Amino acid sequence: MSKYEDIRQSAYDANMQLPKLGLVIFTFGNVSVADRKSGVFAIKPSGVPYENLSPKKMVIVDFDGNVVDGKLKPSSDTKTHAVLYKHWKKIGSIVHTHSMYATAWAQAQRDIPVYGTTHADHHTVSIPCAPPMHDDMIKGDYEYETGFQVLNYFRDHNLNYEELEMILVGSHAPFTWGKTAEKAVYNSAVLEAIAKMAYLTEQINGNAQTLKDALIKKHYERKHGPDSYYGQ
Amino acid sequence: MSKYEDIRQSAYDANMQLPKLGLVIFTFGNVSVADRKSGVFAIKPSGVPYENLSPKKMVIVDFDGNVVDGKLKPSSDTKTHAVLYKHWKKIGSIVHTHSMYATAWAQAQRDIPVYGTTHADHHTVSIPCAPPMHDDMIKGDYEYETGFQVLNYFRDHNLNYEELEMILVGSHAPFTWGKTAEKAVYNSAVLEAIAKMAYLTEQINGNAQTLKDALIKKHYERKHGPDSYYGQ
Amino acid sequence: MSKYEDIRQSAYDANMQLPKLGLVIFTFGNVSVADRKSGVFAIKPSGVPYENLSPKKMVIVDFDGNVVDGKLKPSSDTKTHAVLYKHWKKIGSIVHTHSMYATAWAQAQRDIPVYGTTHADHHTVSIPCAPPMHDDMIKGDYEYETGFQVLNYFRDHNLNYEELEMILVGSHAPFTWGKTAEKAVYNSAVLEAIAKMAYLTEQINGNAQTLKDALIKKHYERKHGPDSYYGQ
Amino acid sequence: MSKYEDIRQSAYDANMQLPKLGLVIFTFGNVSVADRKSGVFAIKPSGVPYENLSPKKMVIVDFDGNVVDGKLKPSSDTKTHAVLYKHWKKIGSIVHTHSMYATAWAQAQRDIPVYGTTHADHHTVSIPCAPPMHDDMIKGDYEYETGFQVLNYFRDHNLNYEELEMILVGSHAPFTWGKTAEKAVYNSAVLEAIAKMAYLTEQINGNAQTLKDALIKKHYERKHGPDSYYGQ
Repeated sequence: MSKYEDIRQSAYDANMQLPKLGLVIFTFGNVSVADRKSGVFAIKPSGVPYENLSPKKMVIVDFDGNVVDGKLKPSSDTKTHAVLYKHWKKIGSIVHTHSMYATAWAQAQRDIPVYGTTHADHHTVSIPCAPPMHDDMIKGDYEYETGFQVLNYFRDHNLNYEELEMILVGSHAPFTWGKTAEKAVYNSAVLEAIAKMAYLTEQINGNAQTLKDALIKKHYERKHGPDSYYGQ
Repeated sequence: MSKYEDIRQSAYDANMQLPKLGLVIFTFGNVSVADRKSGVFAIKPSGVPYENLSPKKMVIVDFDGNVVDGKLKPSSDTKTHAVLYKHWKKIGSIVHTHSMYATAWAQAQRDIPVYGTTHADHHTVSIPCAPPMHDDMIKGDYEYETGFQVLNYFRDHNLNYEELEMILVGSHAPFTWGKTAEKAVYNSAVLEAIAKMAYLTEQINGNAQTLKDALIKKHYERKHGPDSYYGQ
Repeated sequence: MSKYEDIRQSAYDANMQLPKLGLVIFTFGNVSVADRKSGVFAIKPSGVPYENLSPKKMVIVDFDGNVVDGKLKPSSDTKTHAVLYKHWKKIGSIVHTHSMYATAWAQAQRDIPVYGTTHADHHTVSIPCAPPMHDDMIKGDYEYETGFQVLNYFRDHNLNYEELEMILVGSHAPFTWGKTAEKAVYNSAVLEAIAKMAYLTEQINGNAQTLKDALIKKHYERKHGPDSYYGQ
Repeated sequence: MSKYEDIRQSAYDANMQLPKLGLVIFTFGNVSVADRKSGVFAIKPSGVPYENLSPKKMVIVDFDGNVVDGKLKPSSDTKTHAVLYKHWKKIGSIVHTHSMYATAWAQAQRDIPVYGTTHADHHTVSIPCAPPMHDDMIKGDYEYETGFQVLNYFRDHNLNYEELEMILVGSHAPFTWGKTAEKAVYNSAVLEAIAKMAYLTEQINGNAQTLKDALIKKHYERKHGPDSYYGQ
């Protein structure tokens, strides 16, 4: 029994959630799950359809992006995952999809405004859209630089990756993360719902107002603050 | 056998309808069912996914919002339910969702106009959107005040909660109710359909006209008036 | 064995297709099937959910709208069906739904333009939207007058009910028909697809052009003309 | 055992994917699969619903559009397929659908711009919309001329059918192709996703910018260039 069996199983289970939740078609997405003690993560192999996956096929990679175990090539987005794990010590899982509405906002290169409590139940700020990278970064080590594009955006905008667990990469698509695979996948589904709701809100009212501060604070804190009272 | 078994079963069944009808994902909604003789209602526990629910897990709460029976914490929206049951004596069930199209209208802070007979089959008036509360109410006993925001809106606009069984809370999401759990859940699904239809109507015709009075009256009365002839 | 068994079974089967095709929720629609020799039609009972239907529950009604056989009250739209059967001798089935996109065009009170070959495969003209009726007709025998609103629209606009088997009733919803129940239900589903396609076409190009005459003629005639070569 | 059994089975399997992927309703589409050695292709029979298909019912046709084997009439679009097979020697399968979003762009007579990496993962250029044909071509051998409309568009715009495996025919609907049936069907589903994403992108940002050249090049080449590193 491999010492990586747990994260392989977890990564497999989480990857299989993506088509069930309607977040991917074909091979348009990937989930990874980290084992912090071993300093590695398990990630979907590149270009393998979800129906052909198995836990064994998950590839084990270290936080510098080197394959440690597994017969298949890891996802082409592997270096983006590696960079985020290396610099954000407290995340345990990362999800990348091209889900319809979140990707449309990324392609529109717009932050998703806080239009309602569904958004504020999860974050106090707009879901940011990082701009596309400079050409030399794209032409260089693209997936590695994508990781830094995300890291730098958070640093430059004083965002906390433990509070805001998602970003849109402009012209591309969303990334979400979390302490667990369940949470990271949940975040991708929530992002898609918020993205669709915000799109419809603007269609219904071209001058829609963002949520006022008191409501943002209340909804976020009842789920996440020190005095939170949501859940068991 | 608990004396609350009936409403627990009924609340469980009604909660399980929400994901089946496409009105919720994850834990984005809750249904309660009242027992008027006992002066209590059964409500979904807070933050528990639908697939993990069982009738036993429903929490019994009185009309002041105090837990009477049950091991889990009730929905964070419990006080809103309690206020509505306490003041509206003839309702037997309340549903809260963040369903996509109804929530988009709530976020857009617009009433849903009566654009067709599908709407008039159920109500003679726009589906109202109550404005977001004042900051001191939000910062205070938020869920309790949400109940009063709904009650006050109905009182101030001379609306009858037995005729119009739904409202949008601005920047937040819809609430519906009814004499039975079946009717309250039905109202949530009907609201979602009406919300989507009205959105599309405005997209297709930016100057869409609301239904004329004779049609509103005819369609409402054939289903609800003293001379109604719809149904068995 | 009742002499109406065949049309009851056929009407039952056709009604059950509506939720399967996503054209109705709850009780938002009805199908009838005529027996021209007996001068009657079988129609869905009023307000009975699809999951509770059975062939036996279909109500037998004559072309003046009188119930001939059956224990339940027929659909509240029964007189509209009766009027159409009485005056249009060659139709064998009628379908009424509140399907999302077709109803949105009806609420927008707009004809659906011929934007593509999908439309022209079925008709050479816009799908018309009859205006809402005058108030005295609405206040009078409403469902009976709705039938005449449809008949008169076809007569006044020189439309042939054997070629164009559908109409939108303004502020209300669509009606479709056909020689058989299968065709009438097919027409409702095709109308819904055409309605959605036309809506999207206008969103993508605010100045979308309607199909040119040569293409309308070619696509219609390859399926329907004397030299048609579509199908077996 | 017929010598055409393989392509019949392959064409059957591919046709059955269309309703599963949500790309067709009723008979709104067809797939063909070529056997280059025999100089024929298997194609869906005309007007037969998917649920009534079987491998045996697939019709064998040569590259001039003559039926070689089979009891049923082939798809009315057969000559379009034949023309493409005859002139594009390296394609093995063709798919025609009236899928919702791709058809809406065709009806809007607009090319689909490259708004994101989902598009660039597959092509470096806009998905073109060929204009409707001249009236004399429509009135003549319509389906045959449709094939030439596609061929001529590619030739006149210096497009490579091995790199760009899809086109919209203006006022009509999409055609896709590929070396295998799996790839041709995949292309139809990818086109539909790209079409919906591009539509939403423009709704969210009326001034959306197309992808910059460096990103187009990077995403295309990581999947398709000589140094591609996507997949196994």
